[in-house]
Amino acid sequence: MPAQPSHNAPPPGSDALRADALRADARENRDRILRAAREAYALHGIDVPISAIARRAGVGVATLYRRFPTRASLITEAFTEQLAECAGVLDEALEEPDPWRAFCRVFTKVCAMQAADRGFTHAFLARFPDEPSYAGERDRAEEGLALLVRRAKEAGALRPDFDVSDVVLALLANNGVANSTQAESAAASRRLVGYLLESFRARPDIKQLPPPARLGLDRLGGPE
Amino acid sequence: MPAQPSHNAPPPGSDALRADALRADARENRDRILRAAREAYALHGIDVPISAIARRAGVGVATLYRRFPTRASLITEAFTEQLAECAGVLDEALEEPDPWRAFCRVFTKVCAMQAADRGFTHAFLARFPDEPSYAGERDRAEEGLALLVRRAKEAGALRPDFDVSDVVLALLANNGVANSTQAESAAASRRLVGYLLESFRARPDIKQLPPPARLGLDRLGGPE
Repeated sequence: MPAQPSHNAPPPGSDALRADALRADARENRDRILRAAREAYALHGIDVPISAIARRAGVGVATLYRRFPTRASLITEAFTEQLAECAGVLDEALEEPDPWRAFCRVFTKVCAMQAADRGFTHAFLARFPDEPSYAGERDRAEEGLALLVRRAKEAGALRPDFDVSDVVLALLANNGVANSTQAESAAASRRLVGYLLESFRARPDIKQLPPPARLGLDRLGGPE
Repeated sequence: MPAQPSHNAPPPGSDALRADALRADARENRDRILRAAREAYALHGIDVPISAIARRAGVGVATLYRRFPTRASLITEAFTEQLAECAGVLDEALEEPDPWRAFCRVFTKVCAMQAADRGFTHAFLARFPDEPSYAGERDRAEEGLALLVRRAKEAGALRPDFDVSDVVLALLANNGVANSTQAESAAASRRLVGYLLESFRARPDIKQLPPPARLGLDRLGGPE
């Protein structure tokens, strides 16, 4: 059948309709790939091979690369929602007048997100210099966290020898718990967070701690 | 050359000497396999394949299986020394008159051993029903630990809501820290242990914790 001239509402079989269908197809592929990536990252962390994600999505590796030319573009896109959620938690916490409550809320929330999703902390904390908007969000989160720590210390609620690297220490510990406890991971992580917050609180009788280890936030992107 | 009759000190080339040499050879192979196994477990945990251990020891897989017919026999033999060390720490702690100091000493020591050797905690806590002497030591350690916890609570030093499963929780957390911090693992683990002991201490103003997760000691043998 020969193509008909294009109108405002193209009749069935027209070029425009075909283009619409193609776009819908592409969007569906894209969504399917992102869903598969999120699932794979949640289960196995962000080091899972691209081919495994393509298989899980039911698309070819070539199709995946056409939508997401780099590994970083797929990771950052897959985690955009959680990154926004995390940024929201931080923004809210920075409005909270009680600095200790603000610190506890963020710490608790980030640990819960980490326990629910193996990929999230890795993705959140890994550096992707070629993805400037993602890197910008990440840096903003790091600064927000440092500000919360400083305020909670100045208020005399967080122990004075608390080091920003202790947040990383705690996230690594939480990772160890979440990764080994399967069905109990949320409960185990909550219990650990309860203990850690107890140990972070300033008190008149705190015991001296061993010095902080040199841990940067990028530690969480490393091998487990 | 015909074999000479055997004397107290057999002359060179005799059957007895050859048997001695064979025994020395076998012993050397055995030691080499155990050394390789300890190194491999320390780096990669006890799930490392037998073939990788044979390769590291420079012996064939058949030779390895001749010396250690089962995986469990190799693991338990490789960890005999550390198990004895751990049992010694526990025995000493059970003699210590101050129950809080006893608890802290054992907790600190076990966490340090875990940070130094990825394989140790797995080997120590995994159940090997076919290796009764090993299983016996392990059960004794578990009982000793439970006794230390009870005494420290009764003395009012350990918080009353501390659960024995919290030892497992802490070991999983310590594992997460030790496995992700490479050169800093000892320092990072010490810092975490310092925080955890702070949170375990009984105080007049403790905050209620989320309930303990259902964690058995066998959790540590699971996937990471």
